[in-house]
Order: sequence, then structure tokens, then C-alpha cells
Amino acid sequence: MKKILIPIITFVTFAGYGQRLKISNERLSENWKALKSFGFNEETQGNERIAFSDFNLAAINMIDQKLTALGMRVNRDAAGNLIATRKGANNQLPPIAFGSHIDCVPNGGHYDGQVGVLGAIEVIETLVENNFQTNHPLELIIFSNEESGVFGSRALAGALTNESLEVMTPSGFTNAQGAERLGGNANKILSIARKPGSLHAFLELHIEQGGILEEKQLDIGIVQGIVGLRWWDVTVEGTSNHGGTTPMNKRQDALLAAAKFIQLVNSVVTSVPGRQVGTVGRIKAYPGAPNVIPGKVVLSLELRDLSEAKIDQLFAEIKTKTDSLATDSQVKFSFSPISATGKAALTDERIQAVIQNEAENLNFSYQYMPSGAGHDAQEMSHIAPTGMIFIPSKAGISHAPEEYSTFKDMGQGTQLLLNTILSLDQLKEY
Amino acid sequence: MKKILIPIITFVTFAGYGQRLKISNERLSENWKALKSFGFNEETQGNERIAFSDFNLAAINMIDQKLTALGMRVNRDAAGNLIATRKGANNQLPPIAFGSHIDCVPNGGHYDGQVGVLGAIEVIETLVENNFQTNHPLELIIFSNEESGVFGSRALAGALTNESLEVMTPSGFTNAQGAERLGGNANKILSIARKPGSLHAFLELHIEQGGILEEKQLDIGIVQGIVGLRWWDVTVEGTSNHGGTTPMNKRQDALLAAAKFIQLVNSVVTSVPGRQVGTVGRIKAYPGAPNVIPGKVVLSLELRDLSEAKIDQLFAEIKTKTDSLATDSQVKFSFSPISATGKAALTDERIQAVIQNEAENLNFSYQYMPSGAGHDAQEMSHIAPTGMIFIPSKAGISHAPEEYSTFKDMGQGTQLLLNTILSLDQLKEY
Repeated sequence: MKKILIPIITFVTFAGYGQRLKISNERLSENWKALKSFGFNEETQGNERIAFSDFNLAAINMIDQKLTALGMRVNRDAAGNLIATRKGANNQLPPIAFGSHIDCVPNGGHYDGQVGVLGAIEVIETLVENNFQTNHPLELIIFSNEESGVFGSRALAGALTNESLEVMTPSGFTNAQGAERLGGNANKILSIARKPGSLHAFLELHIEQGGILEEKQLDIGIVQGIVGLRWWDVTVEGTSNHGGTTPMNKRQDALLAAAKFIQLVNSVVTSVPGRQVGTVGRIKAYPGAPNVIPGKVVLSLELRDLSEAKIDQLFAEIKTKTDSLATDSQVKFSFSPISATGKAALTDERIQAVIQNEAENLNFSYQYMPSGAGHDAQEMSHIAPTGMIFIPSKAGISHAPEEYSTFKDMGQGTQLLLNTILSLDQLKEY
Repeated sequence: MKKILIPIITFVTFAGYGQRLKISNERLSENWKALKSFGFNEETQGNERIAFSDFNLAAINMIDQKLTALGMRVNRDAAGNLIATRKGANNQLPPIAFGSHIDCVPNGGHYDGQVGVLGAIEVIETLVENNFQTNHPLELIIFSNEESGVFGSRALAGALTNESLEVMTPSGFTNAQGAERLGGNANKILSIARKPGSLHAFLELHIEQGGILEEKQLDIGIVQGIVGLRWWDVTVEGTSNHGGTTPMNKRQDALLAAAKFIQLVNSVVTSVPGRQVGTVGRIKAYPGAPNVIPGKVVLSLELRDLSEAKIDQLFAEIKTKTDSLATDSQVKFSFSPISATGKAALTDERIQAVIQNEAENLNFSYQYMPSGAGHDAQEMSHIAPTGMIFIPSKAGISHAPEEYSTFKDMGQGTQLLLNTILSLDQLKEY
């Protein structure tokens, strides 16, 4: 608690420092339109700027020129991340980094990731326009391939393996090939990991991708962390048999047992307070004919929460109840973990407090919340004190052409990002 | 009730007539081995004699020669059915027909259909061996393509349409093409329908394809009828959403609702006494990813019972309960009937009584039961008083290489078929 108190006192002292620079909503929206044109799908109104695609390359080159023109030194690291630096008054201080990604899912939207990059660029535009130099050097990062494996940020966090380099991505290029297309160097990807402590802070502005802020009519979400995520393949084995000749009391119906399991998951996950979620999204019954009792069902189970311990506890309870279900239904259940990105990652409580203080100074309404989706910030939290700012998403829709946030919300999020950077810049240690 | 009493008195009088001819278990098992060799799959130990295949043609030709050698007049009708006739003492009487099919599902077994044909051939062999002439002419029928649509028996029952002729079958031939391969005439298939009343009776011997007789250690099942069967595609529409960012209480999870529906079907079907069955055998969730809440699920619903009214009543109750489920789950359910063969078909109660009487004379244990699977007898019941005899199936397994019935059971079923034919032969009217 001691550590948290110090910066809070500090903000009050330096509040004026972070409030006199105003971002431009007009410039921000012009830049949004410019970026949208790279990969815009006229027919679906969506975006095809998938990682490592030609659209991705062209957009990165456009931003590279823009940031160079703003006086930044722009590099591509070995993983294809764009890293733009701006000198501070004291370049012995560790940099304040911020950014997001511009790649999207196939037929995706125009906000996920993109808002964070556009906000970061607007921060630089505003500083340049005002000829304002921070104490710490600044690093604007556009991470490569966020959508299919948070590749660029994992490289910086030192979380990649040789295998991950060879993973095929939706572009048709492997991660290694894609990184080279973006100006990287496949042979050096595993050596770009940053040392913990080498950054003063990392900040990411992002759309919520849920419907909570919109429903509660709040301006800002202060992200407490990115929830951990675990996946299992669950196999139910019964006995396949003729749907006409097998009496109801002689069946070992794997799909009936699977149906009870799906309800059991929902009931266990909702039986305790909190924001944990559990999803069965995929199911396959074998042999899968209307007149044959399924002998086998394979389905997916996903659990997410900010607390790994809670995920463990929920899974243990699901397993215990499944044991009874298996006995009652005369079927066999087995659970096989699927590798998925995602230990829970907490943001820095001191940075949360800074964001809250700046939001209050700006008269923005806010709430603290976990992020249910994965982000580059999740990886960066392993090497830097990390903060994350959410703005509302219309109807919680994401990864689709209908994804939408207002220019007003984008502008507010960007102003808060700038003010947070300037506040953190005032803190030598925290 | 009057009509039933008459034949029962008659059997007592003529019982000796039906009991002095003994079928040969040895000949029956030799013929079983011979038929098995047409389409035997060495690798799986199953049978590939699918309808209209070369194996099917070769086996039919072999049986054609055998029956011709036994003095029968053998024809193929326009639908590719093999019809072998044997004169009676009085050829003005309508024939007694009996038979089954020799085609099987891909990688099927060696008993389904085949036992009924082998039993029918053994009936003829026994009559010839004993130089015994029945009063009624006899017709041995091997129906074409039972497994993918009871094609041959539907042709005889006048239940085919022009569309059914063009249906593609697993052999790669349409029904019309296949019928011609078996010696039929595609142009005349729709005109071979028999007039109701033109047969004295139709009898089919078959394996049970369920596990009831084996479990109860009974010799014979007296089939009360072939259950009616109805199919629906059930579509559940909710809202697809991000599995991480959508709180549990904001979900319209189509798969969770589908899971409740599957349980609801089971509970409605088992809530009333009787042998009705209900099956959900096929399910697909969209989009079907572990981290996406399914927005849509399509699944199959099958209901079977001897009583069409009971199927109607069960479906009505399922629909009523589904309405509440849809409201509670905030999803939409819709039911779309799928065309499937299958009005319920009752066997003739007088023939049931003849079979029972003959089973008792032979000291065979028996029970009355519905057939949960479809059969040629189902179609024939629309044009002739029909009876059906089941023998035990090991573990109820069918449509698989593991399908199995003992030679003893095959022999007992065949003897009962013969005795039933001879009993019915004594009845001028019934």
C-alpha cells in the first residue's frame, strides 16, 4: 500500500502538467479513415488487413513514413514489430512504451487494435504540435501478428519458441516468413526479448470488445488484467446403437451425457460470484446420423478468469461433478488440455491508480474491469509495469465488420492515454 | 374378435400338417456360407454387398440358378426384385409370399435380410425334399435395395414416385439404373404395384437388430408392427459472441439451449409408459470455435412408435416445453420436418396368432414386440396381411461386421417360418 500512496500524492502536485495538451479529434478521425483504406472490403464493409498480408505491409509503410515525418526514429525489429522512438529530456531513463496492433482477423473490423495505434500516433502528433518533450524517451510500438498468436509482443516478452516461428498464419505465411515480410529477421526473433525493468511502463488503449461500458454508459474501462484462459478437449464415450431398436433404458447415449455436461459447466461457472466465464463452443457427435445413438462426442471447454486459482477451482469442481454424471449416464468422460495462449496477466495497480486519477481530472466516468480477450498488453505485462485503457464497443461486437466505437470515445481514450503518459513521465520511480 | 377365433380353432385341427416337415440346419448353414462369400471383406470381416453392386448381381444370379434348379419359375420384376414361384395344388388361390433382402449397408454384416432369404430358400428346399405341395402357390421374393430406401418392396406396394427412381444410391447408380442392372425395366417400375388382396399373406423372417430377445433368453419375437418414424431438423438461434468478453448473464448461447433441448426430448419420451423412442443423433454448432459462444445450432430429432398418434402427442409435448425453454434461454427454436420413410405399419393380428400357435407347438419361447427398424414387411403390410418373425441378435449389434445370430436361432426361425406358411396354407379365408 505504501508504494501506491506515493504516486497518488504526486499526481495532485503535477496534475497541471498532464492537462494542458489537447489531442485533436479531427486529426484522429482523419488518420482513422486513412488507415481503414488499407484492406477495406467494399462488399462486406469489413477489413482484410490480416497479419503479414500485402495490406498489412502497405499500412505499416504508410505509418512508418508518417512517424518519420514526425521526427521519430523508426525501426522494425526482428519479429516485424514497428518501433518508433522519440527522445526524452533524459535518455538515461527507461522509455515509456505504448501501442497496439493494426492487423485484424479475416473480414474483421476497423477498431480492434487500430484504435490503440491511432491513439498512440495522435499522442505523438500532439506532443510534436506543442513542441513538448517528455523526460523519458517514448517508444511507439505496432506489434506484428496480434490476431493469430500475439506474435510480436510474445517475441518482446521472450515467450516464443522455435516451433512458434513455423506456425502457419491465415496469410499463408509462417510467422517467421511474415516477420521478414514486415522487415524483420527470422534468425534473430528469439533474441529480441526485452529485459524486465527495461521499460518505465507499457500502455495500451483498446476497444472493450464487450458490452459493459456501453450498457452502463461509462466512458472508460480501467483494465485490471487480462484473464487467463484454459482450453480442454472433452471426450464422452458411450455406445453407438440403432435409434429404432434400442430401448430408452438400454442406451449409453454420449450426446445426452454431453448435453448434461454443457449444463453442468454453466451451472458450476455461475454458482460463484465473480466475472469468470465458461464456454462450450465446439461439439461433434459420432457417427452423427439422425437414426443412430451417438457413441462418442468431442466438445471443447474454455474457462477464463483473472485468477488462475479460480480457474483451477472451477475446473476441479466441473471434474468432480462430471464423475457423478459419467457414473449415472454409464459413459466415460476424459479431459485433454489444449495448448492455448493465456496465463492471466495483471496490470500494474499503480498505473491503474494513475489512469483513474487522470480520468477523474478529465471528468470521464469509468469502472475497473478485467479484459476477457487477450491483448499485446498481456505479454508486455511480463516485462514492464503495464496499464490498459478500454473505450466502449457498440453492442460488444468485435472481429466483424459491425465493430464500432464513436470518434468521441476514441478521442477521450486518446486524451486519457496522453495524460497517463505525461503523469507517468513525472514519476522517476513508482 | 370373431375373425381371430376361427383360425385358432383351425390350427388345433391341422396342427399335424405343419409339423411333420423338418428343415435342415446343415443345409441352411452351408447356404449361409455360400451367400457370405459374395461381397465378403477379408479385412473388416464385413460385407460389401451393397444394393446394385457387382456383388449384389452375382449373388442374385447364384440364387436364381439355385431356385431354378429347385423347380421354381424365377423372374425379375421391373424394380429388380427376384420373384420365384412354386405351383400350389390350387393355383386359383392367391399366393403366399415370403422373403427379405440380400443387400447390405457398406461394411455391413451377414445376417440382416440375408437370414430371411436363406430361411425362405430353406423352406423351398424342405418342401422339394419332401415332395410336398402346398394348396396355395408360393412366391419367394428377394427385394431390391432394401438398405437405402426399401425400394423393391415400395415398388410392389405402389409407394414409389418418379423422383424416387432418380435417387442416387451408395453403389453410384440411381434406383432406376440399379433396377435395370438386376434385370428390371426402369420404364415399368411404377406399374408393378400389386393390388391389395392379391396375396394370401406375406411373411418375413429377420434378425431382431436389438438386444431384447438375447437379454431375456427368448427364441422368437412376434412382430406387432414396424414403428413409425418421423424426423425433424431443429434449429436453435441465439447470438454468437466472444467467449471471453461476454459475461455469463449476457449470453444467448444456442448450444446451452440445445443441450437443454436434448434433455427435454429424453425426459418427454421417457415420461410415459411404452416402447416409444426419441433420438438426437446429429448436432452442429456455429461457428464452432472453442472461444466463441455458438449463435446457432442445428440438430436432428427422431421419434418412433407403433402408434402415429403417440408420435404426434410426444412431438406436441416436446414443442410446448421447447416454447418455455426458448423464452427462458432468450433463443429461437424452429422445427423443420425431414422426409423419411415411415408411417407405422401393423402386422396382421391373425397371422400373429398363427405364429404364436406354431411357436408353442415347437416349444419355442417368444414375446410380442414392435420392430424399431424399418423392413420390407413394412411396405408389404399395405397390400397383404403380413407377419414377421424375429430371431435374437447378439448384443443387438447390426449394420456392422459384428452382427451375429447363431445357426440354432436361424434354424428355429426358419422352422417357424415353414410351419407358419403351412398353417396359413390350411386357411382358405381368415
